[in-house]
Amino acid sequence: MKQILPPDVSAEQFADALQAFRRVVGDEYVYTGQALAGYTDPYSIVADDEAHAASAAVAPANTEQVQDIVRLANQFGVPLWTVSCGKNFAYGGAAPRMAGTVVLDLKRLNRILEVNEGDGYALVEPGVSYFDLYAHIKAKGYKLWLDVPDPGWGSVIGNALEHGVGYTPYGDHFAMQCGMEVVLANGELVRTGMGAMPGSTTWQLFKYGFGPYLDGMFTQSNFGIVTKMGIWLMPEPPGYRPYMISFQREEDLAQVVDILRPLKVNMVIQNAATIRSLLLVAATNATKSQYYDKPGPVPDSILRKIMADQDVGMWNIYGALYGPPPVMDTLWSVIRDSFARVPGAKFYFPQDRKQPNDLLHARAETMRGVPRLSEFSFINWTGGGGHIGFSPVSPIRGTEAMKQYTMVRDRMHEYGFDYMSIFAIGWRELHHVVELLFDRRDPAIKHKADELFRLLVREAAAAGYGEYRTHLSYMDDIAATYGWNNHALMKLNQTIKDALDPKGILAPGKQGIWPARYRRN
Amino acid sequence: MKQILPPDVSAEQFADALQAFRRVVGDEYVYTGQALAGYTDPYSIVADDEAHAASAAVAPANTEQVQDIVRLANQFGVPLWTVSCGKNFAYGGAAPRMAGTVVLDLKRLNRILEVNEGDGYALVEPGVSYFDLYAHIKAKGYKLWLDVPDPGWGSVIGNALEHGVGYTPYGDHFAMQCGMEVVLANGELVRTGMGAMPGSTTWQLFKYGFGPYLDGMFTQSNFGIVTKMGIWLMPEPPGYRPYMISFQREEDLAQVVDILRPLKVNMVIQNAATIRSLLLVAATNATKSQYYDKPGPVPDSILRKIMADQDVGMWNIYGALYGPPPVMDTLWSVIRDSFARVPGAKFYFPQDRKQPNDLLHARAETMRGVPRLSEFSFINWTGGGGHIGFSPVSPIRGTEAMKQYTMVRDRMHEYGFDYMSIFAIGWRELHHVVELLFDRRDPAIKHKADELFRLLVREAAAAGYGEYRTHLSYMDDIAATYGWNNHALMKLNQTIKDALDPKGILAPGKQGIWPARYRRN
Repeated sequence: MKQILPPDVSAEQFADALQAFRRVVGDEYVYTGQALAGYTDPYSIVADDEAHAASAAVAPANTEQVQDIVRLANQFGVPLWTVSCGKNFAYGGAAPRMAGTVVLDLKRLNRILEVNEGDGYALVEPGVSYFDLYAHIKAKGYKLWLDVPDPGWGSVIGNALEHGVGYTPYGDHFAMQCGMEVVLANGELVRTGMGAMPGSTTWQLFKYGFGPYLDGMFTQSNFGIVTKMGIWLMPEPPGYRPYMISFQREEDLAQVVDILRPLKVNMVIQNAATIRSLLLVAATNATKSQYYDKPGPVPDSILRKIMADQDVGMWNIYGALYGPPPVMDTLWSVIRDSFARVPGAKFYFPQDRKQPNDLLHARAETMRGVPRLSEFSFINWTGGGGHIGFSPVSPIRGTEAMKQYTMVRDRMHEYGFDYMSIFAIGWRELHHVVELLFDRRDPAIKHKADELFRLLVREAAAAGYGEYRTHLSYMDDIAATYGWNNHALMKLNQTIKDALDPKGILAPGKQGIWPARYRRN
Repeated sequence: MKQILPPDVSAEQFADALQAFRRVVGDEYVYTGQALAGYTDPYSIVADDEAHAASAAVAPANTEQVQDIVRLANQFGVPLWTVSCGKNFAYGGAAPRMAGTVVLDLKRLNRILEVNEGDGYALVEPGVSYFDLYAHIKAKGYKLWLDVPDPGWGSVIGNALEHGVGYTPYGDHFAMQCGMEVVLANGELVRTGMGAMPGSTTWQLFKYGFGPYLDGMFTQSNFGIVTKMGIWLMPEPPGYRPYMISFQREEDLAQVVDILRPLKVNMVIQNAATIRSLLLVAATNATKSQYYDKPGPVPDSILRKIMADQDVGMWNIYGALYGPPPVMDTLWSVIRDSFARVPGAKFYFPQDRKQPNDLLHARAETMRGVPRLSEFSFINWTGGGGHIGFSPVSPIRGTEAMKQYTMVRDRMHEYGFDYMSIFAIGWRELHHVVELLFDRRDPAIKHKADELFRLLVREAAAAGYGEYRTHLSYMDDIAATYGWNNHALMKLNQTIKDALDPKGILAPGKQGIWPARYRRN
């Protein structure tokens, strides 16, 4: 493995920095050479293999060591890229944005500091995964539910910081966080909200504290390193009923979304219900080759066959009811009557889906907060399972959903890819999460995927749709689409960045924010 | 009226600044001398009458004029204190923190730019009050509810920025805001969230945008001037039932709070239900002199008489149910059974309260989002109706509520004041909002109230309770209680302040944040 260095750092200076890091964390927790294999982008898409190559990685044991490493990084001018569990695979995994950056791996900060059953919260460190926290809650017998995203190995903190979502009524993870501890770029330790009061009784109970509410600025950001965070947990409800509703026609999407909007805004649908496209559902328990062995996207006739074969729709809602049975009965009668207006709509509960590997059984677990990984079997639909997510946000409107669907589908087909997506319904918005699958071993396919992705970003922005998160390789592209008033928001972010991190140590290029040191126009 | 100047600004320089302001907004919108009467602290408490005296006020007509004024303020070194509607009377009204600051009055930015019935939001300017927005929604016939705080004349933006609360399920106003436009201290205009994308379709629909989520840093802050903000509105529910539950004994507070906690955390209680102390309820339709004419707090025997006379409890919950009738029935049976465990608990619906001026009738309006002012009749309980709010936050626990209640009540009685309060239940926390009433005309009483207030702040902090907002005169005191790790959070705020506002133009001293120019120590 060729050694990659941070820009403007000599080999000698870099070696000195690593020596200093070793004195803090111990030799075994500074990684170089072959030991960096876990810090590469697992689904790298751009042609340059070194675009996101780390120069080294360092894994401190605790907050004090994080502070020490940050101070040393300032001293040696060595940039750091923070990862919590580093499992955000479709968005770059544990690899840094800028080649040569040292990965600051927080996996050893994995303490569950508190779970409070009565108040319903946990206080955790960044290395705590959903699997870890779930196991802890079960072991203690607490009557609390986690809210989990699809990848159960992800970090509870990392996911909330990246504006990740889950599928219970607590699905907006940043909205459910309360109270942070943050290491700033100068090594100082800050507690936000009520945590700024010594001996506070409410750090994990009341978000806003006194004065500016700063937590949000540490999300999708390179302004600090979050080393502790509170997350609210949902009390186990008195009842739970997952369900699936399938729709037969492509064009039903418009009507389905228009029915969903008032149900969601009125909180009749209590959780982040999702509408899943046929192939995303089918791919969780089949591979493309079982149905179609030619190049290019699966044609309509085969789509029909898959629908019949698996008893799924072109679109499929996975949702759940929560609460006392009479409340669930009332909500379900409204939901059922509403969607029964769509010709051909079919309603299912888990007992109606006989196949053990049916997606409803998996979703039934996820929507009650059981962390899993198995749904990612969809990445084996084609060979060489690479995937990245294209995630534009739109209003919850049928016309907008159809417009997004057709524009993205047509481009994907044009470039030879199958269309697979989730429309996830938030408080007021529709997240269109498109899974772009590609064969990681095939440079020509990767090149096509890359070209397609950039085109999708441009076309979405021209129609007023912005992405809410993205892979490392597209952070600059997407940041550029948020350019209102001559990039006023980016200029504000840069001003804050330069004030808090004058040496440009923390995560250069994260979400398109470059410190002065590396900034080019 | 003696002319007050900003610190370090000569009379000549100041006159030049005002001339420049007049060229922007017109002569009639720059106020000095007698015309500043509306910009004084209505319930001034400290001995120094000039502590919060404005030097002038300026009322721009639109965002461009706000930008011009800010640029001129930089040029002339004249500090500005922004008010939206300026009606936050118990916290200082439209007066500035620092004597000599020019009030930037946004009352003329009073446009309701959009109300979207289907998506459930409004986009407004800072001069739009709850009364204004309510009237607009009614006139258009939209099936939407506002969430309103007690003072209906307040600004929709101002209240959300100050972390204000209301009493429907949308009571956390900052949580319900979506998308801001902000004038920075350098005069630049920024849009947050999805608003940073030109032609965005989701500025008022999705909060987080791409990159750091910055909206929170513009709340309780002097980092920028918010000139537009989206606020989510609640669809009119299919049913609504306000209720009151009274409890007879002081010590019932502990049990009531412990019953409330799981009901609130489980969302059985859907709105920000409040527990109101006897005298706060009684004072809305009676005066102290009707019951007691001696100095000092009302004694226990009289409290009993008031309870019997008005058929109210020592503590009184005002709450409401929302939704389809079967859902309300289910929730009410749980709520009723839970509180029936408290000996002597009494349950009322509006038809059970025969007096037209009974507080439940007023709360029934407020809890369905009808803006009002009439509840402030409580400030006439004693003569000379001044009041300020002492607002510590605690966990939702009986022992904590009793501890706060007894410590505050005993100190209030010791200083000769009646105890009046609301315990408001948020997502996970209890706001204890104590109303300290005093005779504005009596310097001796004001002095006592001031001394008492500072003592309450210190004692609360020592017990781990922090205030979530405060009157101008106590901003420094309370900011100092958030001093964890050698005031790390304040240092962070100061770093951001100096980067964004190097000349210290915007709201010096707001929430204890002073720009470098005025900072001591």
